[in-house]
Amino acid sequence: MAKAISIDDVYAALEDVRARRPLVQNITNYVAMTISANVLLALGASPAMVHAVEEVEDFVAISDALAVNIGTLSPPWVEAMRIAVKRASALGKPWVLDPVGCGATAYRTQVAAELAGLKPGIIRGNASEIMSLAGQVGAGGKGVDSTAPAEYATSAAAALAQRTGGIVAITGETDYVSDGMALVTVHTGHALMPLSTALGCSLSAVTAAFAAVRPPREAAVAALAVFGAAGAVAAERCSGPGHLPAEICDALHRMDRAILAAHARPSE
Amino acid sequence: MAKAISIDDVYAALEDVRARRPLVQNITNYVAMTISANVLLALGASPAMVHAVEEVEDFVAISDALAVNIGTLSPPWVEAMRIAVKRASALGKPWVLDPVGCGATAYRTQVAAELAGLKPGIIRGNASEIMSLAGQVGAGGKGVDSTAPAEYATSAAAALAQRTGGIVAITGETDYVSDGMALVTVHTGHALMPLSTALGCSLSAVTAAFAAVRPPREAAVAALAVFGAAGAVAAERCSGPGHLPAEICDALHRMDRAILAAHARPSE
Amino acid sequence: MAKAISIDDVYAALEDVRARRPLVQNITNYVAMTISANVLLALGASPAMVHAVEEVEDFVAISDALAVNIGTLSPPWVEAMRIAVKRASALGKPWVLDPVGCGATAYRTQVAAELAGLKPGIIRGNASEIMSLAGQVGAGGKGVDSTAPAEYATSAAAALAQRTGGIVAITGETDYVSDGMALVTVHTGHALMPLSTALGCSLSAVTAAFAAVRPPREAAVAALAVFGAAGAVAAERCSGPGHLPAEICDALHRMDRAILAAHARPSE
Repeated sequence: MAKAISIDDVYAALEDVRARRPLVQNITNYVAMTISANVLLALGASPAMVHAVEEVEDFVAISDALAVNIGTLSPPWVEAMRIAVKRASALGKPWVLDPVGCGATAYRTQVAAELAGLKPGIIRGNASEIMSLAGQVGAGGKGVDSTAPAEYATSAAAALAQRTGGIVAITGETDYVSDGMALVTVHTGHALMPLSTALGCSLSAVTAAFAAVRPPREAAVAALAVFGAAGAVAAERCSGPGHLPAEICDALHRMDRAILAAHARPSE
Repeated sequence: MAKAISIDDVYAALEDVRARRPLVQNITNYVAMTISANVLLALGASPAMVHAVEEVEDFVAISDALAVNIGTLSPPWVEAMRIAVKRASALGKPWVLDPVGCGATAYRTQVAAELAGLKPGIIRGNASEIMSLAGQVGAGGKGVDSTAPAEYATSAAAALAQRTGGIVAITGETDYVSDGMALVTVHTGHALMPLSTALGCSLSAVTAAFAAVRPPREAAVAALAVFGAAGAVAAERCSGPGHLPAEICDALHRMDRAILAAHARPSE
Repeated sequence: MAKAISIDDVYAALEDVRARRPLVQNITNYVAMTISANVLLALGASPAMVHAVEEVEDFVAISDALAVNIGTLSPPWVEAMRIAVKRASALGKPWVLDPVGCGATAYRTQVAAELAGLKPGIIRGNASEIMSLAGQVGAGGKGVDSTAPAEYATSAAAALAQRTGGIVAITGETDYVSDGMALVTVHTGHALMPLSTALGCSLSAVTAAFAAVRPPREAAVAALAVFGAAGAVAAERCSGPGHLPAEICDALHRMDRAILAAHARPSE
């Protein structure tokens, strides 16, 4: 049985990110680029957004982890994703898939399924996306937003984890991490977070940063706990969603063990 | 004669957006994507940025309204705009055109004219853009900024509304909405707003959200009033343009009838 | 010998930007677009992001300066850069090159070298980028971040300035401007700035705005001093990197001679 992950484990992973400053390559959507880069910098990682087929392979070779996000996909970018992912796999570099809006259109669903077939170490999505990617027809979703609570997707996550051999993280009011057998629950975050765009995408980038310093299951839990705690701290300082991204960056920058323990609780 | 639109009408439209949470598809420019998504979320709508020709038609079919913005146009995106707009028209879904920088280059002017010919329910632009789109040669403009006050463009707006059969909104120090005959004036907004990028683009996205719940003329007035009031409230909390987008999101999130009535005044 | 540039010279240049409101065309990366536009607006310039080959030449013709940034390059954008730069040179309009991530991949290094060969008036980069662009093999860099202090790149900057006939600015803890012979040092900025994405890119855009009203060497020094002073003032109001971009915009908007003199010091 998989070892339980404590807040001390999570904090040690964060300290490792800060010490090693992993270079995280992102092939992500236009909406998420700036906030993802800022979140990675505030966390202590080094972000880069690189998508040209002329250079993705070279960049993967110098990166420590890769985040692939289909939010604003188009055929040239999907080709870059394929090339980058294959190179990452060949080099043994961790990569994370964020299947944004899977289920909303046939094209999106098909691309997400193809990328999932390339065996990402971690898949991170909302309930509708994970259920759709696991093959549940009519999984719902409203564009890129989920219409189902995360709880509904835990069996889909387990099935998907078994099929890909990786870890699947579902985010929602409560977050879940499945390795295909055991389920870790992470209580953290804040209700204001879905009202600020691309925070889920940014979390996927953070997950890639942790995957550079920890195995997938521990990386997924650490990312959820640290980012969720930052969101909870940030929301307390906000009277609406407007300043949430900036406050999350500040919270990540100042995150310490006590704040983390007060705002995130992983359990199995 | 068209019915006068009161602040109560506007507030009822906002409550409808919040209750129905329309899915608003955006084919918009790179600069505006993040702030447009955040503004739509803060308003109570559900945003998506989707532009691949492989999926735009499918996405239009599940959306409640479409916003098309040519700010950073290129041929593949223009093709996606054409396809999406035709599908929206075929399905009877409302769509809004933002002819960013119309008049600045021949390419931009020609694409804006072609899209206007596809009969958007609402066109929203600054004075230079509207005058150029109406065919006034030498309408000025400085890149994507207007060099003329909104007042100068009211007859161009009326001509354009008659030609397209839709509604034309001109934004500036005072805002105007024309249906080709009557002119609604909206007094709102703040002088700091033109110093923060893509707020006009975000307003066009907000207009699409209102078009999902109201006919075009009422939607255009409601969008101007609600967004302008949010801008006015936000600017009072700022000592420069830097925090204006975040404060506008907070103001939209907290908007109530009293705040709206205190900061926006539509009249005919 | 080149004339010394005083804080009064810098402030006069800022007042000229504010009075003339130059139209600055940007072909820049997706991460930097929004913040670059906001920084230019707060400075007093008029930004536009235009990259389609169908209109770049027309837009250069109406612009006062051009900023070219390869941060998220791809072949169609590189073609637009070539066309825009050649048109700017033909029309005698100033242009600035930001060789983001030069050295990180072969493609990026080759494109940066090609563009540098088209003789930009000013090149602005971090130490790793400038050393790589000057031809120093193994100049390091970690993705788009520098691994060397700016001091290490001063001889590379001089060599590059001599080769291109332009000005080279290196940013880091201390900033340097080389014309191939004399070196101007600018003490300004804040340690928080590298933790917020695309501030270097935004500085390149600001440099283009100053190049619209001053010769390259004075423009480069003025941009470093004004933007660095804004960064220093902004950082004092922050408890992390999250609000830094917004605070920089506010600081630029409110910049006066006393604040400038207190936070930036050019010397030769």
